[in-house]
This record gives sequence, C-alpha cells and structure tokens, in this order.
Amino acid sequence: MIETLNLPLGERSYPIHIGAGLLDRAELLRPALRARQAMIVSNPTVAGLYLERLQAALADVQTDVVLLPDGESYKSLGTLDAVFTALLEKRHTRHTTLVALGGGVIGDMTGFAAACYQRGVHFVQVPTTLLAQVDSSVGGKTGVNHPLGKNMIGAFHQPRAVLIDTDTLGTLPEREFSAGLAEIIKYGLIGDLPFFAWLESQMDALRAREPEALRQAIATSCRNKARIVAADEREEGVRAWLNLGHSFGHAIETGLGHGTWLHGEAVGCGLVLAARLARRQGELSEAELVRIQALMERAGLPTRPPTELSAERMLELMRVDKKNLHGALRLILPQGLGRVRIAEAVSEAEILAVLAGA
Amino acid sequence: MIETLNLPLGERSYPIHIGAGLLDRAELLRPALRARQAMIVSNPTVAGLYLERLQAALADVQTDVVLLPDGESYKSLGTLDAVFTALLEKRHTRHTTLVALGGGVIGDMTGFAAACYQRGVHFVQVPTTLLAQVDSSVGGKTGVNHPLGKNMIGAFHQPRAVLIDTDTLGTLPEREFSAGLAEIIKYGLIGDLPFFAWLESQMDALRAREPEALRQAIATSCRNKARIVAADEREEGVRAWLNLGHSFGHAIETGLGHGTWLHGEAVGCGLVLAARLARRQGELSEAELVRIQALMERAGLPTRPPTELSAERMLELMRVDKKNLHGALRLILPQGLGRVRIAEAVSEAEILAVLAGA
Repeated sequence: MIETLNLPLGERSYPIHIGAGLLDRAELLRPALRARQAMIVSNPTVAGLYLERLQAALADVQTDVVLLPDGESYKSLGTLDAVFTALLEKRHTRHTTLVALGGGVIGDMTGFAAACYQRGVHFVQVPTTLLAQVDSSVGGKTGVNHPLGKNMIGAFHQPRAVLIDTDTLGTLPEREFSAGLAEIIKYGLIGDLPFFAWLESQMDALRAREPEALRQAIATSCRNKARIVAADEREEGVRAWLNLGHSFGHAIETGLGHGTWLHGEAVGCGLVLAARLARRQGELSEAELVRIQALMERAGLPTRPPTELSAERMLELMRVDKKNLHGALRLILPQGLGRVRIAEAVSEAEILAVLAGA
Repeated sequence: MIETLNLPLGERSYPIHIGAGLLDRAELLRPALRARQAMIVSNPTVAGLYLERLQAALADVQTDVVLLPDGESYKSLGTLDAVFTALLEKRHTRHTTLVALGGGVIGDMTGFAAACYQRGVHFVQVPTTLLAQVDSSVGGKTGVNHPLGKNMIGAFHQPRAVLIDTDTLGTLPEREFSAGLAEIIKYGLIGDLPFFAWLESQMDALRAREPEALRQAIATSCRNKARIVAADEREEGVRAWLNLGHSFGHAIETGLGHGTWLHGEAVGCGLVLAARLARRQGELSEAELVRIQALMERAGLPTRPPTELSAERMLELMRVDKKNLHGALRLILPQGLGRVRIAEAVSEAEILAVLAGA
C-alpha cells in the first residue's frame, strides 16, 4: 500500500509518498524532475545498497552521481563544494534536479546545494533512515553545520517530492533506528496525545520493525509535520514547536563534536531534559514525566546528557542557539503531555539545575 | 538632492536612495534594520575611507565589523565562512542585519551570507563603486564564484534598502570607474535608446565625474534595472536581458582568473563582442556597431578579448554558462540599438569567428 500525503504550500506544494518498494517506481519520481538531467547525491554505504534501483528508475535521463563521505562531521561547506564541482564538471544546467538518496545529512546537504546551485534548482528527497523519513526530508529546512553551531548555514528550500520507501529500514543499524524513534515520539509530545499513547502500545512492534506499525508511525509523523510546516513555512511561529528537545540536543552534538552522538539520540535526551525542566516549572506532572522517560528508554534512547559535558559547557553552547531572541534563552517546553509552549527568557539557573541532574 | 526609487516586489519591496553624503544619514539606514544588532561587512580599503561614518549612523545598536580580503579572487565559499564565524562569535541572532559597505564583491558576498545565515537574515546595500551602485546592489542576486564558473553558487535574496552615496565615487580608481560605465552603457543598449544618446553627449562629463551627470546616470540605470527586476525577479524571462555581454564577459573573467580583468571591463568587452555577433547576423547596422564601439572606447573600456585567451578556450568556458538551456548556447544579443533578444542555440562557428576577430 502506498499512502500519499500532500504538503500544501501554494506553488511550492509537493507530494510525500510512503510505502514499501517505492525506490524504483519511476512514475512517482519522474513528475518531480524539471528536465532530463539529474544528479543523485548519496554516500558510499547507502549507494551500495540502493543506488542501482534508483538509477534504473531514471534510465532515460542524464543521471550523474556524487558520493559524499558518510557522517554528521562531514556536513560542512567544504563537503558541499564537492557537489557543486560535480554539477559543474558534468555541465548541469539550472534545469537539473538533485536527488538526495540517504539520511538526514545527505538530505540537508543536497537540499542546500539545490538551493544555491545557480541560485536554485529542483530537488527530490529519497530518505533511507527513519529519522530522515519522519523529520528532515519534509519541510524544506536545508543546510550545513558550522564549527560554532549546528545548522547555522542554510536555506528554506522545499523539495518537489518526497519518496519514503519503508523497505530501506530493513538495513538500518539499531542505533540509527532508535534515533528516528526520538523524532517520532516528539510529534506525540508536541500536539498528538493519542499518537503518544499509540506509540506506548506499539513500541515493541516498532522496534521489531513490523511493517504496518512502521508505515503508520511514519505517516502519522509526516502528517503532523506537514500540518505545522503548512501553517508556518519559515518558522515565524508554530514551526518552532518542532524544535522541542533540540536546544539541548544541539548543545550535546556541538559539545561532543558532530557525529559522536547521533542527532536523534541527542534529541531523545533533549526531549527528556526539556520535560524535566517543565516538571521543575510545574508544567508537567511527575506521572507525565515518568511516561516520557519510560517511552524514551523503551525506544533505546539516552535519557541523561553525556558525562563528558559539564552543565556549564552545555549552557554556554545553548546560548548560541538560533531560536534565542536578542540574547535571552528561548526554549520549547512541554506543557502537560501532548502540548508545548515557547518559553522566553528561561532562567539559566533552572537549566543548570536540570543539566546537573537535580 | 536625494532621489528615492522604489523597487516594487510586494512584501520584499525596498527603497533605493541616491545622492551625495548619504553615508551617515541614520534616518535612511535605521528603518532597514530588523533589530538592534548589525554586522558591517567591508574590505580594508573601503573601511579605511568610510567605516567610521557608517558606524556613527549606527551608534545606538550593537555594531560589529568583519573585513574581507579585497578582490574578485576572494569571492569564494571560503571567504564567506569568515562572515559566518564573525556572526557566530559575536552571537548574532536571526534578527541581525548585515550591512554591505563596498563594491560588487562585498555586496554579493554579504547578500549571500545574509541569505544563508540561520537560513536568512536582513541585509542592506551601501555600494561604494560605480559598478555596484548601478548594477549589483539592486535586484537581490547574491553569490560567490566557483573555480569552474562565476557566480555559480548563490541565492536570490533582496536587500531591505540600498543607500547610494555618490560622494564615494570621488576616491574610486580610474579603472574601476570605467568598469562601472560598462554596465551603465548596457542599460542604454538593452532598452533605452534616449539614455544611450544621452550617454554619448555626457561621456566627457561623466569621466570628469561631474556630480549632476553622475547622479542622473546612476538614477536612470537603477530605474531601468528596477523595472526589469520588478517584472521578473527570479530571471525566468526578461531579467535575462541584463546579462547582455555577460556570457562573453564571464568567460574572460574565468579564463584569466577572477580579478585579472575587472568585471565591468570584461562586460564592456562582452558588449562589443555581442554587438559584433549581432552585426554578423544582420541584426545590427555597421553604423550602430561603430557607435557602440566608440562609446565603449570613450568610456575607457577594452573592445578586444585578451590575447592570452584563444577563441576555442573562450567558447569552452561559455558552454558552462548558467543561461544555457539543455546544453545549447544561449546568448542575449542586440537587435538594433536600444533593443535585445534572447538568441537560442547560437552557432558555435559564428561565435568562434567573432572571438577570432573576424
């Protein structure tokens, strides 16, 4: 079964196809191409598994391939340059289409390369990790990291289509699978209490990668994300909710060096830290906090920040977060289960207390 | 006298102020700032002359400065990174405003940095060269060069205001002044025959840098550019006219190494080469060609391509131009004086003949 959602953004609207075996369904991919020229961007691991099938679906257009080194630590301006070089060497025009085949790092970089190449070309997302399927491939946030902060350089650039082949999850390492679950749980916490409860009942099925549970979890996540992005494409308001757990998470990633913890692992831990802060502020009951922690643990995710990072260092890193306004710390925090609020000028003492495990 | 034009682009509309002594007019600059934080981007030469006055106009906001090395050869992703580092080190939020103080290289890079920093912040253009004042500061084309092609990486990102202080032209070296005249002559050729005739009558006054002639030439150029950009912001149609002479020009710049010839010098030569090609095709009379060549010479601009570049090498470089469609050479060419056309699939033999000086 293929489920197709639509992300309604006027002339930038696009379909999100979800199902098993989509990878070589040319009829889903081809309408998203602008002309008969495409550049597949991937990494050696993913390409070894799926490149051939994707190329088969593009057999009748000029299809070139550029492989980037694998991992968050390569999500940089320098790596991006390799994509531009490949595009120019193969004479890709402003009517080319980039195809991102891989996880969030590949998707974010391909999207940003598409935003910048000749001031903007089309691109398609073919996410192959759970995290990319439920989060980064949808919504048009693209970019790279800077040594001083994650995702600090980028663009809003929407794909022309998202193809989510759930079969690709079969080869995903356990850690990466759990990392994806963090973002799925996030949608429950943000605004979908029934989904949170469903996840509590289906966590074992999900970790066993039962296809029907997976399809449903991915589709519900994408539907939640699409609704929020449609309401606020450029993050002037409610889209900021999607950053629940991310201020803590980005600090962990930057502090340890990008790639040490997976993004989803850092976010999973960040969700729990945000919940603990909300608990301290009386916005969450003890029972609700326990449910969140328990689900995160069942998903195989960390619930304590890395011991290598002091509370003070974490706080320092959180101060450069994009979401801060005029220098004051700004966080998304749970307000009960299934609801969040934007907390302005959060007390640094409170944050330090949570980070120190109080 | 201050003349203010408006570039009408809906919610992205902005004013273009033209006049003497605008540099420290806080009341023109301040409405363009998003919050009380600004980063001035400049180079050592320009900063030495004008930075203090601009800073005075921003005395009551957090104003930081980043100086980039001077010259087209530094218009790269690597140099851009220095801007991001400065912004992050000084904790600039997504509500900061970048201020470009300098020529086209500074303006293009600052605009692209603003397009990408935290996925987009405000910026203001304060162009200090004639070329930047009449061309690159208006219209929102931003970007950097790639070793394989000029302006291949960039974004459409409109400034919030353009402040053109004609006093800054007093310190401009002769070569750079002539380079600016190339783009001014271009507006006459594209669609303003009366302006072309006016330039023929005023070229001596312009080269003597008489203030009133300068103000009028700049204002007419900006008005022509604003009209075209308003009709076609993202270059799907008529905006391509502005590239008259640029396919040849970019090939010269890339072939010699960016910065060897100034952009305006390459464009001036490119305009003449385009006119010669139009002449071969019977689209321009001999008398019209002679008028174009004569005006370019009086402006102090080259009318022959550099001897270091063979015709074959120039053609090879022209093949990777952004304006090409599906691999076929696409050029903007004069059609009579004061009119242009988009020529598709131009014969390479004809181009070679023109490049070889036939």
